[in-house]
Amino acid sequence: MAGRSTRRRFLEATGAVSAILTGCKRSEAPEGEGPRRIGKPLSAYGERSAFEKSARALPTTKLLEVGSSYTPLAELVGTITPSALHYERHHSGVPVIDPVEHRLLIHGMVDRPLIFTMAELRQFPSVSRICFIECAGNTHLSYGRRDAPTVQVSHGLVSCSEWSGVRLSLLLSQAGVQPAAKWILAEGADACKMQRSIPLEKAMDDIIVAYGQNGEALRPEQGYPLRLVIPGWEGNSNVKWLRRLKLVDQPYMTRDETSKYTDSMPDGTARRFTFVMEAKSVVTFPSGGQKLPGAGWYELTGLAWSGRGRIERVEVSLDGGATWQDAALSEPRLPAAVTRFRLPWRWDGKEMTVQSRATDESGYVQPTHEALVAVRGPNYEYHNNGIRPWKVMADGSVTDVPA
Amino acid sequence: MAGRSTRRRFLEATGAVSAILTGCKRSEAPEGEGPRRIGKPLSAYGERSAFEKSARALPTTKLLEVGSSYTPLAELVGTITPSALHYERHHSGVPVIDPVEHRLLIHGMVDRPLIFTMAELRQFPSVSRICFIECAGNTHLSYGRRDAPTVQVSHGLVSCSEWSGVRLSLLLSQAGVQPAAKWILAEGADACKMQRSIPLEKAMDDIIVAYGQNGEALRPEQGYPLRLVIPGWEGNSNVKWLRRLKLVDQPYMTRDETSKYTDSMPDGTARRFTFVMEAKSVVTFPSGGQKLPGAGWYELTGLAWSGRGRIERVEVSLDGGATWQDAALSEPRLPAAVTRFRLPWRWDGKEMTVQSRATDESGYVQPTHEALVAVRGPNYEYHNNGIRPWKVMADGSVTDVPA
Repeated sequence: MAGRSTRRRFLEATGAVSAILTGCKRSEAPEGEGPRRIGKPLSAYGERSAFEKSARALPTTKLLEVGSSYTPLAELVGTITPSALHYERHHSGVPVIDPVEHRLLIHGMVDRPLIFTMAELRQFPSVSRICFIECAGNTHLSYGRRDAPTVQVSHGLVSCSEWSGVRLSLLLSQAGVQPAAKWILAEGADACKMQRSIPLEKAMDDIIVAYGQNGEALRPEQGYPLRLVIPGWEGNSNVKWLRRLKLVDQPYMTRDETSKYTDSMPDGTARRFTFVMEAKSVVTFPSGGQKLPGAGWYELTGLAWSGRGRIERVEVSLDGGATWQDAALSEPRLPAAVTRFRLPWRWDGKEMTVQSRATDESGYVQPTHEALVAVRGPNYEYHNNGIRPWKVMADGSVTDVPA
Repeated sequence: MAGRSTRRRFLEATGAVSAILTGCKRSEAPEGEGPRRIGKPLSAYGERSAFEKSARALPTTKLLEVGSSYTPLAELVGTITPSALHYERHHSGVPVIDPVEHRLLIHGMVDRPLIFTMAELRQFPSVSRICFIECAGNTHLSYGRRDAPTVQVSHGLVSCSEWSGVRLSLLLSQAGVQPAAKWILAEGADACKMQRSIPLEKAMDDIIVAYGQNGEALRPEQGYPLRLVIPGWEGNSNVKWLRRLKLVDQPYMTRDETSKYTDSMPDGTARRFTFVMEAKSVVTFPSGGQKLPGAGWYELTGLAWSGRGRIERVEVSLDGGATWQDAALSEPRLPAAVTRFRLPWRWDGKEMTVQSRATDESGYVQPTHEALVAVRGPNYEYHNNGIRPWKVMADGSVTDVPA
């Protein structure tokens, strides 16, 4: 289906793009133009062009040590997030850690408590995996209000990297997990000693004790020199600046899994340990804050991801949800990684809404905002994966859609 | 086969790694230790840790505007090369180009000569693809001499990124290629106006006119704001700072496809337009210049790639080529992308050689150095994909192997 869809889109596009070229001038053959001066020399470590200004959005609060910065999703291309633009979420700032001094302790219900240096961890058999990390609170600003003006603020707490490190299951096998152990308390080396309880079952599956990100060492904001990467699970459980793993028989009910990252339900109960980030997608072009120069052909594009595996399908509606059509999906579609979708799109210059709907390989379909509210009530803050429409106005400006 | 091999390696490793831990101390339960001061604030654009020093190796020549810098392959993890460490090859330095002013001209044997702005190119249907770019001269320093002391200098002219842009075939369809056109002259906007002739057949296949690298705009050293990405073909043909594509009926025999990037054969003829980078691999750990702390278990690892498609197999020999065993391969194995191979390895403390041999999906097997010389003679400079051994000395130091 994907192949056929891609071909159809391509054929549509080939016919379509001539409209883009109405503004293109014919050749004036500037063969002799351009710089003649020799350029800049080779360099040891490159920087981006001074013309490029993409930046993480910072909150307007005074205390920038505690909070989140947002990836500029609308300005990205492809599927990898540049490490310099990976979203941040800090609970007590970014610690400065000397990797030579850093240690990882594994203790609690184990036969052999162990302390690892970074050099020792790098001697172990390693793995690499491209996957997303998404904050459980991503899109919470717009939940029930939908008043986030841009996709950077509404959805920018998700990023995608190639992570490298050691399988946690391998380290645990060295320590010898005792039969009574069922959970792991993971603790960071930041000032607040951020702690989360992780089920042992997931640890024995695919959790990575990661030291690498996009080919080099983790960035400081992403846990340098060591973090957990838990494919498909909420960002907060991917503990950064990892210093300690304690094998225990039950969850520790730490601050960040009780007062935060848990939800009050309409019946007064709390929804806790909701680790998996369900299928989600969002259109990044056109999206809030952008301005289309005029009617004509464009490429509608966006990102989709699911903590339950591969993205199987992304549909786009251009008429407020009445009808849907398949978008082309970037390959390879990796489990728990971001997938880009694309659809050639001709804007006729009239007011309209655009929205996307993801389906993952488990068959789960991204729900509407209304369907989520009906089950979770209006006070729900985390794990908002509802469909997100954007409105294109007749003057080409794109805005959020008040619920 | 890959799955079985991976499982076997894992089981070996599980038994193996206990030796790594002889240096690990038992828990002293430093639960109360660590920084208590609040860390650094959120930031708009991240930088790597000040403890990280990986750098491209620069040549010792005075003129750093013309030459190559080398990716530190031995220090990378995973498969993606950080954009800041992507190898460079410049013929007249890195031009500073304002993307608003930049234009791409398509002319020559076309029905409609066209000039594109960057904004127009970004409106077209786009593609993203992870693939390597390798300089045709990679490993030339060691060809016939094998005197490159490190894998950074011997093999560091290969890097791997996610590239994004527009299919060249789509742009050509807009210009209307005339039947007599068989080649394309591609020209850069650097001071020397670097030019290469590209067969039209490849342009209609998978060439990308790329503006994106690893999620953001191309880096200046990689052709900002626009370059060709020709999956699997020698780096020099992937013209950077792309400004002009002229449809022609034959190759132009430019300086960089005659005096360079072509090879004198033993019979006096020249081997020209050798675009495809054949299957190649190299062990990056252990590799020249490294020092093993002592006998014991390590992970032997390295990189493999082929311009003809996917890497199907990488074998490693620990006994000078007498016997070979399969290494585990990272997934996904993408066509014309770097694949990492890994093998748990126990060094017994004795002198030995290590080497790897790649096979791609076409069935092509990476040749020995001797086999290449037998066909190409001693003056061959480009496209050296021969097997590269490293010698581990009894003191743990690793050196090159003189031919």
